[in-house]
Amino acid sequence: MSSQNNDDSKIQRAPTSEELKKFEFIQVLNEDPRTKGVCILGKLKSSSSSEDPKDAILLLEKLHFGSQELPNLLKERILQWISTDNNDIYHWYNGLLTKDEKFPDFKATLIWPATEAHIRKYSFQPRFLIRETPHIYETIVKPYIESIPTSRIQWVYNILSKKSESERIVLEVEEESTGFILLPDMKWDTVTLENLYLVAIVHRRDIRCIRDLNDTHLPLLKNLRRQILHFVPQKYPGIRSDELRLFVHHLPSYYHFHVHVTHLRNDTIAGGIAIAKAYLLDDIIENLEKFAKDYYKKATLTYVLGENDPLFSQMNDIGARVTADT
Amino acid sequence: MSSQNNDDSKIQRAPTSEELKKFEFIQVLNEDPRTKGVCILGKLKSSSSSEDPKDAILLLEKLHFGSQELPNLLKERILQWISTDNNDIYHWYNGLLTKDEKFPDFKATLIWPATEAHIRKYSFQPRFLIRETPHIYETIVKPYIESIPTSRIQWVYNILSKKSESERIVLEVEEESTGFILLPDMKWDTVTLENLYLVAIVHRRDIRCIRDLNDTHLPLLKNLRRQILHFVPQKYPGIRSDELRLFVHHLPSYYHFHVHVTHLRNDTIAGGIAIAKAYLLDDIIENLEKFAKDYYKKATLTYVLGENDPLFSQMNDIGARVTADT
Repeated sequence: MSSQNNDDSKIQRAPTSEELKKFEFIQVLNEDPRTKGVCILGKLKSSSSSEDPKDAILLLEKLHFGSQELPNLLKERILQWISTDNNDIYHWYNGLLTKDEKFPDFKATLIWPATEAHIRKYSFQPRFLIRETPHIYETIVKPYIESIPTSRIQWVYNILSKKSESERIVLEVEEESTGFILLPDMKWDTVTLENLYLVAIVHRRDIRCIRDLNDTHLPLLKNLRRQILHFVPQKYPGIRSDELRLFVHHLPSYYHFHVHVTHLRNDTIAGGIAIAKAYLLDDIIENLEKFAKDYYKKATLTYVLGENDPLFSQMNDIGARVTADT
Repeated sequence: MSSQNNDDSKIQRAPTSEELKKFEFIQVLNEDPRTKGVCILGKLKSSSSSEDPKDAILLLEKLHFGSQELPNLLKERILQWISTDNNDIYHWYNGLLTKDEKFPDFKATLIWPATEAHIRKYSFQPRFLIRETPHIYETIVKPYIESIPTSRIQWVYNILSKKSESERIVLEVEEESTGFILLPDMKWDTVTLENLYLVAIVHRRDIRCIRDLNDTHLPLLKNLRRQILHFVPQKYPGIRSDELRLFVHHLPSYYHFHVHVTHLRNDTIAGGIAIAKAYLLDDIIENLEKFAKDYYKKATLTYVLGENDPLFSQMNDIGARVTADT
């Protein structure tokens, strides 16, 4: 091992409190007042190295009240009440909590050293509503999808062929044209039932996205719906079929047909179930069965694109952004 | 003023820190780990009264990091780092903040004395996905809508006839069949542009909800779209037309046709823009124009109903809840 490697391995231990105190603030990259989260860019130097300070990203998020602390919160943990306003039976305060290592104030993720790609990923990105007409799909989006090397979804094929994650599979329906594999999404802790998040990945490889669906896929879509609504309440007692949202994204994050399955109460995925992004499986079935067998080939679909999305510049050039006159 | 009244007025001042310490915890009514908010039911007694403790609801929410504290957060406000894990360039910690009245940990709303209605309002309510078929709409929902006294939307008519809120109107289009009034929703502070929330209320009184829409309403829907996308960026410089989400709710909260207008970045309304609740105006136009002139009369619509909703028991009796076989 070279001395360079030794330096690197030193950098990659967790910085100490003393080292973190020397974090040089550069700017706030992004923040979410709703979830009380903030993402800061700075520079950080290892005290054991003579190198210059390196880019660091610090993700901070206030912690939720712990359920075990709630019964005694007012008696034991609230240090100070500051009355701010008052109207009839409504009384407003700010407050301070006692300090206790058992109940930290925040959690943090430090990415250090951070690359340009990390900084881009965590930075606020301007977003635009665009309208994907059938023509824009055919001329811009479809060629883009076809240009993505198959290797990019090798991980999906590994799941389908049980080369990886096979121990995570909760249901497999083996039939070629209507079969699928159901497994927990990586975002789910697999324990908190009201945050349930599963993904059903179909076995067939000929459906890239919602645009490819037509009435010949109704048996597949209905099989997904029936099997999932039947299986999940059995596998996870306490969950009812009328608490499960089954939906598809467009654009999806990978171009092999899959259905998201989440609990109604999962509110960690607000953007994931928003209009102009998510399509309810029931509505998809409805549209193909009742309104047009090629509904998703004919429809203009509206969605949000970030400025850094590989499709954005072409979309912008062709005038796909929403205006009063489109 | 009777002595009873004097007692009441004593109760209605803001309880002091000492009084709050005697809050008797009963149970958690509801909580939202995403926003770090919790709602607690308890009993509270006024030290200046001999009466029994009364019901009290305490709404607590952790506060966001203040933008003015961020540049010096690591040097000045973080008291302790607790390293929890580490993998390559990723380092995880929990942390404690210094205590400072200028930077409170949480805000609180105390409702005291609280009524049964308050408790119901803030309690978790089981929710169910139901499928409103055209038949269920005709036999259950439409009669329910028709049973609601007109007085319940008198406030809407007051806005349309400028008897109230006229100073809040930002745009009026006076035409009888395609006209509307645009004004800020009460949830918007009218200042923070990325939280923009307007409502367009149509002048005509014959459209109760999305079910009543057909192709004869396309001029109205397109006029709403064109006028709003044209006007809002002029009225609020800095907002672009491709940052505006125009949508309709089903079920709506009142049965006079109106369109919600929000900024893409408004993330205070996660539930309000979710599938199985919100319908993009562009998709409504698309469906009526391209797929069926009576699309919303024929479609089965899926939505979330709470157990306390006036429609729930009838829906439950008729078997409208989502199952594997519906």
